[in-house]
Amino acid sequence: DGRMVLFSGPCAVESYEVCAKVAESLQKICDRLDIQYIFKASFDKANRTSVDSYRGLGFEEGLRVLDNIKQEFGLPIVTDIHESQQAKPVSDVAQALQIPAYLCRQTDLLVAAGETGKTVKIKRGQFMAPEDMQYAVNKVKSTGNEKICLTERGVSFGYHNLVVDMRALPIMRQFAPVIFDVTHSVQQPGGMGGSSGGKKQFAPYLARAAGATGVDGFFIETHPTPSEAKSDGPNMIPLHKMEDFLTMAKQAFELGQQAKNEVE
Amino acid sequence: DGRMVLFSGPCAVESYEVCAKVAESLQKICDRLDIQYIFKASFDKANRTSVDSYRGLGFEEGLRVLDNIKQEFGLPIVTDIHESQQAKPVSDVAQALQIPAYLCRQTDLLVAAGETGKTVKIKRGQFMAPEDMQYAVNKVKSTGNEKICLTERGVSFGYHNLVVDMRALPIMRQFAPVIFDVTHSVQQPGGMGGSSGGKKQFAPYLARAAGATGVDGFFIETHPTPSEAKSDGPNMIPLHKMEDFLTMAKQAFELGQQAKNEVE
Amino acid sequence: DGRMVLFSGPCAVESYEVCAKVAESLQKICDRLDIQYIFKASFDKANRTSVDSYRGLGFEEGLRVLDNIKQEFGLPIVTDIHESQQAKPVSDVAQALQIPAYLCRQTDLLVAAGETGKTVKIKRGQFMAPEDMQYAVNKVKSTGNEKICLTERGVSFGYHNLVVDMRALPIMRQFAPVIFDVTHSVQQPGGMGGSSGGKKQFAPYLARAAGATGVDGFFIETHPTPSEAKSDGPNMIPLHKMEDFLTMAKQAFELGQQAKNEVE
Amino acid sequence: DGRMVLFSGPCAVESYEVCAKVAESLQKICDRLDIQYIFKASFDKANRTSVDSYRGLGFEEGLRVLDNIKQEFGLPIVTDIHESQQAKPVSDVAQALQIPAYLCRQTDLLVAAGETGKTVKIKRGQFMAPEDMQYAVNKVKSTGNEKICLTERGVSFGYHNLVVDMRALPIMRQFAPVIFDVTHSVQQPGGMGGSSGGKKQFAPYLARAAGATGVDGFFIETHPTPSEAKSDGPNMIPLHKMEDFLTMAKQAFELGQQAKNEVE
Repeated sequence: DGRMVLFSGPCAVESYEVCAKVAESLQKICDRLDIQYIFKASFDKANRTSVDSYRGLGFEEGLRVLDNIKQEFGLPIVTDIHESQQAKPVSDVAQALQIPAYLCRQTDLLVAAGETGKTVKIKRGQFMAPEDMQYAVNKVKSTGNEKICLTERGVSFGYHNLVVDMRALPIMRQFAPVIFDVTHSVQQPGGMGGSSGGKKQFAPYLARAAGATGVDGFFIETHPTPSEAKSDGPNMIPLHKMEDFLTMAKQAFELGQQAKNEVE
Repeated sequence: DGRMVLFSGPCAVESYEVCAKVAESLQKICDRLDIQYIFKASFDKANRTSVDSYRGLGFEEGLRVLDNIKQEFGLPIVTDIHESQQAKPVSDVAQALQIPAYLCRQTDLLVAAGETGKTVKIKRGQFMAPEDMQYAVNKVKSTGNEKICLTERGVSFGYHNLVVDMRALPIMRQFAPVIFDVTHSVQQPGGMGGSSGGKKQFAPYLARAAGATGVDGFFIETHPTPSEAKSDGPNMIPLHKMEDFLTMAKQAFELGQQAKNEVE
Repeated sequence: DGRMVLFSGPCAVESYEVCAKVAESLQKICDRLDIQYIFKASFDKANRTSVDSYRGLGFEEGLRVLDNIKQEFGLPIVTDIHESQQAKPVSDVAQALQIPAYLCRQTDLLVAAGETGKTVKIKRGQFMAPEDMQYAVNKVKSTGNEKICLTERGVSFGYHNLVVDMRALPIMRQFAPVIFDVTHSVQQPGGMGGSSGGKKQFAPYLARAAGATGVDGFFIETHPTPSEAKSDGPNMIPLHKMEDFLTMAKQAFELGQQAKNEVE
Repeated sequence: DGRMVLFSGPCAVESYEVCAKVAESLQKICDRLDIQYIFKASFDKANRTSVDSYRGLGFEEGLRVLDNIKQEFGLPIVTDIHESQQAKPVSDVAQALQIPAYLCRQTDLLVAAGETGKTVKIKRGQFMAPEDMQYAVNKVKSTGNEKICLTERGVSFGYHNLVVDMRALPIMRQFAPVIFDVTHSVQQPGGMGGSSGGKKQFAPYLARAAGATGVDGFFIETHPTPSEAKSDGPNMIPLHKMEDFLTMAKQAFELGQQAKNEVE
């Protein structure tokens, strides 16, 4: 509806308490700032670097917590799916299904997500040219579902590093609305031995850059106490910093919305 | 057992006839050249660029053809799986399960493959540093299964291009035997609009380079008539060229096996 | 002095007429927009792709035109040097010497530029990590000259492509003020057979992104009739579009100046 | 003349003694192995990372030592030049002039080198697509000089890393003979704070890979005591290992020479 969109929450469904604390705070902030808010958390982290990493509460318990958040706060929910048989049960709770970046070429998964009729949020693969994301969009559209958004989260740049190519934003907006994933764009894949590291200090710079380039919204992981988060803590924006962060992101977003882009 | 290994076949299970023709020819060639041969074909191509691309005969019919090849020629079979529930039924037919490059971080898939007790052949993700493939190996080993091999097929290098980093071969051999995938290393992802292109003319150069660097074997897709292949045709070595190709690859393999690598 | 800086002009010194037309227009626009303006043109394009490409009017005649522009309009001049013996004579005309990206590691050139006492504007090499630009800065500082600025123009990303890593801007601003080169950031090196191509349509997006990230100014090549420019025409902003472009760039610049970047 | 070529010596002209020791040993080894040997050392290291790094004996003294080696051992000499006015005096001593990778697009330097009539050895820029090296070759040819060879030394792959793209070797051999630079291909640019690091342990793997792919010769820096070398020590092959190294490289070279590369 033209308003800036925010997908945000802790990385994993750690507990109802953490989820509720985040949902409550962000709902208030987004009301004040006129931002459309969707609660995000993963019920299961299926692609952690190490087999011993924390993966969340598991499928059933994780979905139950997400459903509680939805009921309690009246918030739409987004969560990611990794195999096609998860699409249906997850769609009973979530309003949007997120396709992880590594899986953005898996036809069965995209089709299963599309068939639920829910919004399908596809992350750009770290190995995909931005114009090739149209094929992922078309796989979902082949089910008759046109509710699709894309997400930019950086592209492979040598080993253990990602770079955000801002040109990808206008290219992908030709196919669907585009969300900028602040958190994973500053990730350093596998950069900490058996887990992924990050450079959180770049998050505000990249958020402003993407907003000014032109996007439809942001994806930001947050936590009341990032140092205690069970996943992706190093990259998270602390919950108490989110209002300032979103205020800044919205200024950049508005600049991007108003801009003219003709050069001939 | 120290012999050079070859994983080879058409890309997809197109028909029994094509599979049988390839199996018969390669079995004879590998006998002559003292190469250990495993027949490869995919029952389903789940990550084609476009939703309209050919995907193979489907799960059941595809597996049936692979089983016929196994019975008829007494050959071990390798085929790829894309979701964890495929691991068990595929392992009834195949001696080795291949994990596609995009899926090399999917913990459930790796664990499900490991639990079958069959060999797990993991392709390096186009986004993975070679040393990080140890985490994929460890996920399989967590099931008690030590029958693992890794596969090099190039790493993302800008858009629509892959580069083979030969340093990845000795790095990954620290964790498991390494197979060099000649066919996908010359692929140009998404490089032909809605499908992937390739530069087959580089295949012999890269095969020699990898062999001389040091590997345990090769993966090569072939077809009696590449121009009629339903998938990856542009990159395939024609079946009638395979004996020359393997003779050359084996010379490079032997150079790599004998080499000393000390520089201090 | 805190004002946004603009380095701009035609790519090469084609003729006094073209230079004067650009200088006059931009001087007026920058007065209106409160932008600090430095006239830029190259007296010699020493690193064109092809030996047959246009190289400019030559050393003496090119400098003479630049000197005329300086006298006529009272504008400071920046131009690039390629060999160390050019530093002294060029510094008699120019207030700032630009070190081309390919040459940013040439110690003699940096030292010769530093010794003139003029401002040294160093472009980041397409092969340099942003933090390594401190060594280029230190080479100039070794002469006692502290008047240095750095320029971002994209980094190699596969073949025939550059990507602008916005993280490079705050990293390099630790060492010196940073200018964002809009024109060369959209270049595609060697992408048109024997000459370099470009994607000018991305210029406004990248300019806003860089401004919002935070820079000290912009470098933009312009021409009254880009299709008739003798060098880099495909990437140039037409002169009649410059006022709109700079108005937009200044909005992004101001966003970047005001932003807070703390995330803890 | 079809024989394998070796360009080798210490990185910098440190002293006559070090140069003579290397020249004497390598001349004997190359005689035994039927390799054509050219002595290499730089009289000046003009692009060191830090302004404080060792740069060699300087122009005049450095050339004098190279001339002594030439007279004493009857060896051809190659050394690099960084500015066009160096071409003529260096050509009085050297049989081949090397153009550094960063400078492979500097038209004046290539033309000045070409005009000496000596062999011009051009290193591929870390930022150049292999097919674009034809433009560098053409710049030299524009002087009427056809004695040209190209050198592969890796291409930028993210920050602080290079990757050798073996496809570059057959591509560049379309334009001129190609030398594989073992030493700089394992460099990690700026990877050690203020100086460049390296991973020498990959040198034998890459040398075999390049030889088997197909090249005309090798470039290898060596030193009697690498830990005491004043430049690039971490990447050098110790002199006492060179006979084993060259024996291995020559086996790979021969494999590459004999190979057939047709795949249709």
